[in-house]
Amino acid sequence: MAATVEDGGGKTAPTPPPPAKPLCGELVLRLLLFAVSLSALVVLVTAKQTEVVPVVLAPQLVFAPVAAQFKDSPALIYLLVALCATTLYSLLTAGSSVKSRGSSCAKRVFVLILLDVVYAGIMASATGAAGAVAWVGLKGNDHTRWNKICNVYDKFCRHIGSATALGLVASILLVLLAGLNAYSLYRRSR
Amino acid sequence: MAATVEDGGGKTAPTPPPPAKPLCGELVLRLLLFAVSLSALVVLVTAKQTEVVPVVLAPQLVFAPVAAQFKDSPALIYLLVALCATTLYSLLTAGSSVKSRGSSCAKRVFVLILLDVVYAGIMASATGAAGAVAWVGLKGNDHTRWNKICNVYDKFCRHIGSATALGLVASILLVLLAGLNAYSLYRRSR
Repeated sequence: MAATVEDGGGKTAPTPPPPAKPLCGELVLRLLLFAVSLSALVVLVTAKQTEVVPVVLAPQLVFAPVAAQFKDSPALIYLLVALCATTLYSLLTAGSSVKSRGSSCAKRVFVLILLDVVYAGIMASATGAAGAVAWVGLKGNDHTRWNKICNVYDKFCRHIGSATALGLVASILLVLLAGLNAYSLYRRSR
Repeated sequence: MAATVEDGGGKTAPTPPPPAKPLCGELVLRLLLFAVSLSALVVLVTAKQTEVVPVVLAPQLVFAPVAAQFKDSPALIYLLVALCATTLYSLLTAGSSVKSRGSSCAKRVFVLILLDVVYAGIMASATGAAGAVAWVGLKGNDHTRWNKICNVYDKFCRHIGSATALGLVASILLVLLAGLNAYSLYRRSR
């Protein structure tokens, strides 16, 4: 709520609103976001497994070691890029949150809401894409004749599943951060 | 910015903030969101194509008509559910926007930001999931031996691609709506 002071002529002039309380909740959420997105990144990058599978090498069928890695799928590469961007973003905004502690202006909060919403959208779409590919890998699809691969590459699929789940947590954290900052603006505007 | 009035004793008492200008931009965006998500819904539901393809019917290979429809993929069913929810949400909020025209309170704007961000996340993840499956259908994946299907089911793939593109537009509109409402709160809090 904006306060006012009375000047000599009886007219009132607005004073700047009192500084908001240190946003401890915001800092904790941003550090949590950093930890989650960095963990997801590590789990995704280490997703590699080699198994001996039948390979058609005309005119015969031979058994050869074939590796499964996240680079084989555009959806998983998209998740990697989104996680890299979110990890960097969470680190930068956590630093800025510590720096401006107790003196966060309305403009900063507004810009953070915009960025949080955009990053939430990017992370959510990357999580959706990776989740859809992981689901086909786990269950297959009889209609399109896409075979499941998780019965062979079990460790690889566990990594992809964990990275997708952590991506979902990162998306939820970004939505919470946007909500927290929107609440901060709402409190000031009452 | 909150205004003040002077009472008899020279003290100042806060008055409610002046009503915000009618949010024409918000109403236009919400109606656009409704049009986009409804179009995507129609395009997705009408995605069905039957083609004669070779089918293994032991001990021989026969040619039989096989239909491709959106129900065959969990990712496309998720997109359908997200589009249904967004279409309904856009209609309800457009109605509420018309009803409260010129008297939108800070609390309403805050709640709308929260809802817009949550719906943006849901739509973005559904678009990502459908896009990932559509991409595999279009390009296939040699590593996992998932064959492309869009060389046979071209009309079906055009429908899925269009619904995914419209889903992306709906996600962007929801992010813009959240940004617009955040700006409205920011203007009040200065």
